[in-house]
Amino acid sequence: MAAPPSQAGRTARLGEQSLARAALTYLAEPGDPALGALLEICEPGEVLAAIKADMLPGIGPRCGDSTASSKALDRALDHWRARLPGLPDDADITAACRDGIRLVCPQDPQWPERLDELGQGRPYALWLRGRADLPSACLRSVSVVGSRAATGYGAHVAGEIAADLGERGWAIVSGGAYGIDAAAHRGALITNATTVAVLACGVDHPYPAGHADLFADIAAAGLVISEWPPGRHSARLRFLVRNRVIAALSCGTVIVEAGERSGALNTARHAANLGRPLMAVPGPVTSRQSAGCHRIIREWGATCVTCAADIIEMLSPLGDPDIPASAGGQWPMALPTRRPADPGSPPSRDELDPDSARVLDAFPARGGAGQSTIAVEAGVDPDTVLRCLGLLAGYGFIERCDRGWRLRRP
Amino acid sequence: MAAPPSQAGRTARLGEQSLARAALTYLAEPGDPALGALLEICEPGEVLAAIKADMLPGIGPRCGDSTASSKALDRALDHWRARLPGLPDDADITAACRDGIRLVCPQDPQWPERLDELGQGRPYALWLRGRADLPSACLRSVSVVGSRAATGYGAHVAGEIAADLGERGWAIVSGGAYGIDAAAHRGALITNATTVAVLACGVDHPYPAGHADLFADIAAAGLVISEWPPGRHSARLRFLVRNRVIAALSCGTVIVEAGERSGALNTARHAANLGRPLMAVPGPVTSRQSAGCHRIIREWGATCVTCAADIIEMLSPLGDPDIPASAGGQWPMALPTRRPADPGSPPSRDELDPDSARVLDAFPARGGAGQSTIAVEAGVDPDTVLRCLGLLAGYGFIERCDRGWRLRRP
Repeated sequence: MAAPPSQAGRTARLGEQSLARAALTYLAEPGDPALGALLEICEPGEVLAAIKADMLPGIGPRCGDSTASSKALDRALDHWRARLPGLPDDADITAACRDGIRLVCPQDPQWPERLDELGQGRPYALWLRGRADLPSACLRSVSVVGSRAATGYGAHVAGEIAADLGERGWAIVSGGAYGIDAAAHRGALITNATTVAVLACGVDHPYPAGHADLFADIAAAGLVISEWPPGRHSARLRFLVRNRVIAALSCGTVIVEAGERSGALNTARHAANLGRPLMAVPGPVTSRQSAGCHRIIREWGATCVTCAADIIEMLSPLGDPDIPASAGGQWPMALPTRRPADPGSPPSRDELDPDSARVLDAFPARGGAGQSTIAVEAGVDPDTVLRCLGLLAGYGFIERCDRGWRLRRP
Repeated sequence: MAAPPSQAGRTARLGEQSLARAALTYLAEPGDPALGALLEICEPGEVLAAIKADMLPGIGPRCGDSTASSKALDRALDHWRARLPGLPDDADITAACRDGIRLVCPQDPQWPERLDELGQGRPYALWLRGRADLPSACLRSVSVVGSRAATGYGAHVAGEIAADLGERGWAIVSGGAYGIDAAAHRGALITNATTVAVLACGVDHPYPAGHADLFADIAAAGLVISEWPPGRHSARLRFLVRNRVIAALSCGTVIVEAGERSGALNTARHAANLGRPLMAVPGPVTSRQSAGCHRIIREWGATCVTCAADIIEMLSPLGDPDIPASAGGQWPMALPTRRPADPGSPPSRDELDPDSARVLDAFPARGGAGQSTIAVEAGVDPDTVLRCLGLLAGYGFIERCDRGWRLRRP
């Protein structure tokens, strides 16, 4: 795939701190607690410079009689410096951003704020392949993951659920693996929904290689993303580290088939730890591939879900705007250009896109109004009203009521 | 089956109040709120006499300007009196207690105290067919019910679960219907466990007729019981009324396959209303017969269970005594002759059977002891010790600890 001009332009704008973050993805493993802690108090460029100079970032020269915490930093510094010989220079890093590959860093408009809930475990940066807008995709997204050794039943259900969610305007996040992950991505692709594959290796050579065509399709319709830089291979532990990003990117996680020791349960644990809705699809109790799902329903309090409607009910306590299939593909385009905010930091009324602002203005000061009343009052077509209502509800401006929708009191 | 001499003796001892209660099972439908309320304040004989004399029991002669509540009683009296022509006399009622059929009334030693938790909805009396001891059977029992239109999967799982529970000394309560109920009864029978079929018709002509052999087997190894008198046929509403008894008799209820409108969900609701553990076995989300199970897991908080061990864990928070298969059949025999008590009213130490009393005496005053230590100290064989430990834990005398078992502080 040739790089679109707009993306070629973007790579040229990589600033000093972004270049430093990109370099850090080459030097440190994602989720390294020492680097995560440092990046909370130091600029990425400062950390990178210290590593290159064999200094303890934020502390200074190495010394023998160090404390326990600086000893850990000392060891970490050894690990990071061991990779210095393979570190590409700034020109090479910039050159890596080609063929649709780009870098997104915290505080960039393209950074999904949800990842910040990982705290010090937040990715240093993300490598993206594909054209979709990541924050927009995450706004209404579900992680659907499960066993690689899926049964026909599991693959069927994962595909159906992903397709149904896609038809209703939800993006599907998964891990690109064989089995359930692939079925979920394919279900989303069938309905032209956005789907995001989170890898544990470079986005230029996604694993498994047998999914090369699938990854190409995902990049064309959505995104292939990774914390690891181009050229990096996957490894067993990297999948576990990667799983926290799958859980953190979406509104909630659904496990479709997982054996007792499935890596999908690791993703489930991350979702639970983040306080995100955790759901599992049951299956025959005679199937080992459903044993993990049944256990997390019984022991972790995962919600038993059987279809897309169950999942949406869990994720949309205010009621789902129920975007029709035809509008599903347009959903991300309706978003304001501003970075979509989590409920904690909604945009002001002035920051809304024009349609949403008109719809919001059409609301009565007291009491509720039906969708068609609002459409007439706002002078906006019904499909657009539907999309705007979902957006406004997501931002907390409005809520469901007996008569339809009403303004939400602050 | 010829009546055993001991049961022929029992029928001769039917007292006046028992005869009156038997008569009331002919006159009123079970669960009649008017009769349930009356029996809380009047003797059964007094109620029966009033019905025969066309008087309002507990009030007196009918009068035109009655209150709303006595109007309801007035209507009920009409219903009861309409059945007077078909009421057998005392000699016929006594004669109905033959061929292994007997009557058990509240306050009888054979009455299962758990039914009293139904309050005014408590059965007036129970008709029993079979030799097992009902209170003993209920002490460690699970209701396993589900769809009549069971799939092969559901019938297989119900049978396996019932057999496994039976092997561990648990009795199986169900409704004798086609499908899941039959599979559960059969699973229990295979392991020589006690099983109880609760019918919505007379125990002399159990419904469905196609299960005549099954009911004969159940009566031989356990009990066929009913609130309806011999000769009464089943009807749709009677099944719903019957379901509260299935739920009330056992420690907890397991639903194995139930469509969205299955009567098994009615039993589930009764279990939940009684505060008894409610469990459901999941199945493929593509199967309509599992839709009800998934819904009550998601919406009612039913516990997702996949095997007998899951169920026992729900019902034995102190840990299961884990009675070996060989001892399973002996379990009821080890019970004291006194009526087994619910946890709310445990027997005193003096009321324990001799073996249990010796085992309890063998416990150290402080700290725990292993099962073999207790066996040596008590001079009782290991199998008997196992049974006694389960009983003593059930009554709250002892509890599990790291070292095995210990006395429980009051």
